[in-house]
Amino acid sequence: MRLATRHDGSPDGELVAVSADGVRCVAAGPKWPCLRLALENWEQALPDIAALNPEQGEPLDPSTCRAPLPRAWQWLDGSVFPTHAELMQIAFGLDPIDTERPLMYQGMSDRFYGPTDEVVLPSQEHGIDFEGEYAVIVNQVPMGTSAADAMDHIKLVVQLNDWSLRAIAPVEMKTGFGWVQAKPACSMAPFAVTPDELGEGWQDGRVCLDLEIEWNGRKFGHANGKAMLFGFHELVEHAALSRDLVAGTIIGSGTVSNANYAEVGSSCISEVRAIEMIADGKASTSFMAFGDSVRMEARTSSGSAPFGAIDQRVGPLLDK
Amino acid sequence: MRLATRHDGSPDGELVAVSADGVRCVAAGPKWPCLRLALENWEQALPDIAALNPEQGEPLDPSTCRAPLPRAWQWLDGSVFPTHAELMQIAFGLDPIDTERPLMYQGMSDRFYGPTDEVVLPSQEHGIDFEGEYAVIVNQVPMGTSAADAMDHIKLVVQLNDWSLRAIAPVEMKTGFGWVQAKPACSMAPFAVTPDELGEGWQDGRVCLDLEIEWNGRKFGHANGKAMLFGFHELVEHAALSRDLVAGTIIGSGTVSNANYAEVGSSCISEVRAIEMIADGKASTSFMAFGDSVRMEARTSSGSAPFGAIDQRVGPLLDK
Repeated sequence: MRLATRHDGSPDGELVAVSADGVRCVAAGPKWPCLRLALENWEQALPDIAALNPEQGEPLDPSTCRAPLPRAWQWLDGSVFPTHAELMQIAFGLDPIDTERPLMYQGMSDRFYGPTDEVVLPSQEHGIDFEGEYAVIVNQVPMGTSAADAMDHIKLVVQLNDWSLRAIAPVEMKTGFGWVQAKPACSMAPFAVTPDELGEGWQDGRVCLDLEIEWNGRKFGHANGKAMLFGFHELVEHAALSRDLVAGTIIGSGTVSNANYAEVGSSCISEVRAIEMIADGKASTSFMAFGDSVRMEARTSSGSAPFGAIDQRVGPLLDK
Repeated sequence: MRLATRHDGSPDGELVAVSADGVRCVAAGPKWPCLRLALENWEQALPDIAALNPEQGEPLDPSTCRAPLPRAWQWLDGSVFPTHAELMQIAFGLDPIDTERPLMYQGMSDRFYGPTDEVVLPSQEHGIDFEGEYAVIVNQVPMGTSAADAMDHIKLVVQLNDWSLRAIAPVEMKTGFGWVQAKPACSMAPFAVTPDELGEGWQDGRVCLDLEIEWNGRKFGHANGKAMLFGFHELVEHAALSRDLVAGTIIGSGTVSNANYAEVGSSCISEVRAIEMIADGKASTSFMAFGDSVRMEARTSSGSAPFGAIDQRVGPLLDK
């Protein structure tokens, strides 16, 4: 099952079921007006939405698509690709990573940009960077849920761009408090899919698909999501140790990164700069400038794009 | 103006205006059913709610009170009492604190415990601690808002207990990613008040009131909120550098702490343990045990308690 959210003037938008080719849709209707409410009652909502027939529905205008979940009560982002962690550690002289437990922080969840929204930021001097990643959305998860039990709570999979401001990030990291200023609102690709929709692309709680990234129209990377040190079910267990996870909680993988980065590229500029620093002693790739675009689209081996594409520009905050 | 939220079976609860003595109330009614919606339309909601006459209203049963804002899209907690920071730094050998910018992290906001709810946690071994603090609630704040302009966005003031698990906190801090497991849901005192309601207790964006804390019925501290290194308006500016703050965002002060702690005590156990470690080389006060209670109540010089009291016990997560 593939879901999207259309602009309808409401904060949560209108939930629609989407056809396999992503071009037709049917509104889920007044019983399930938005994805947030459907996630809070997933056992009831799933059969109703699955009974829709989007293959015979109306055309889906891509410009009407918002993030499938435009706002959520909780966004917990992991960072569990070991190659990314090792490269950042070496380049920036960080302490060795504890591989016994996943890295995770809580980020801004009241707004997720849609796939083609312009992303507005205050300054190019902040080191504007994209981070291509996957994430899952869970229904209500009780405190203390095990990884094995967590798998059944993973209801949807999404593809994200976790915007990052790299000049501020190390200043905030040094405090131990995590990021506020360095992590503005993220963007989400247009389609949220049930894990079964990914077929062999969903294995052991991992999205085993290449994440194709283009920066200003040039190929940047196509790392595969399979290389997560912990599966999403293990991230859910980690997150739920001392809290109930509210329905609609989004849990992220962190920047997709592979050991053969020389071959497949990276999913953020900062990692490329780290590779350059290790190889050459200095970073030669600059961060994004206003007007730059980024496109992110996960692909199956047959060439389909289950989440659709994020394709957007970054621009300056205009004077009030 | 003083506001509370009563249980009514809905996720956001029922908004009521409360009398000056805290014992009578009037429901805000169908136009403003809950505080979250009122905050999203504050300019319209304020005169309507201010026109209510809670002095002539029905009795307010304290057992029906939830947190005034039982869930919020965003909770950003500062840590801006320099005495607390210095004591923790010395005791735990942390890096010196950068006093140029406030410390801040994003915490769990989908659920705030009510003032008398039992707080459920997985293990005593996690080092269960309370943190008494103040916080403000803003309406929508545009990205890039200055501290001077931020003052007008501070619509309500609340009193919080930021529950903390001290055995996990340093493990998470060391990663630089901030806290997830170490910061479960917070609790909120029953009344949210407009800043004017505090009279001289609200100065320069600070809550200049003693926060009286009792642990298992014994006096623990009564530090004053005036000692914040940054005012709440400066914390709002900090938070809004690279994001719009959604209406209903809660911004916290961190643990209230004063330089004359020998006289006024502390607002969390961890600080007391730090003082013991500095003085004696070891901490002698243990963290909380299941069954322990904590009471927190800010008081004016005339003895009134504008936020009412948090008075609750901590207990074990029962087997599912």
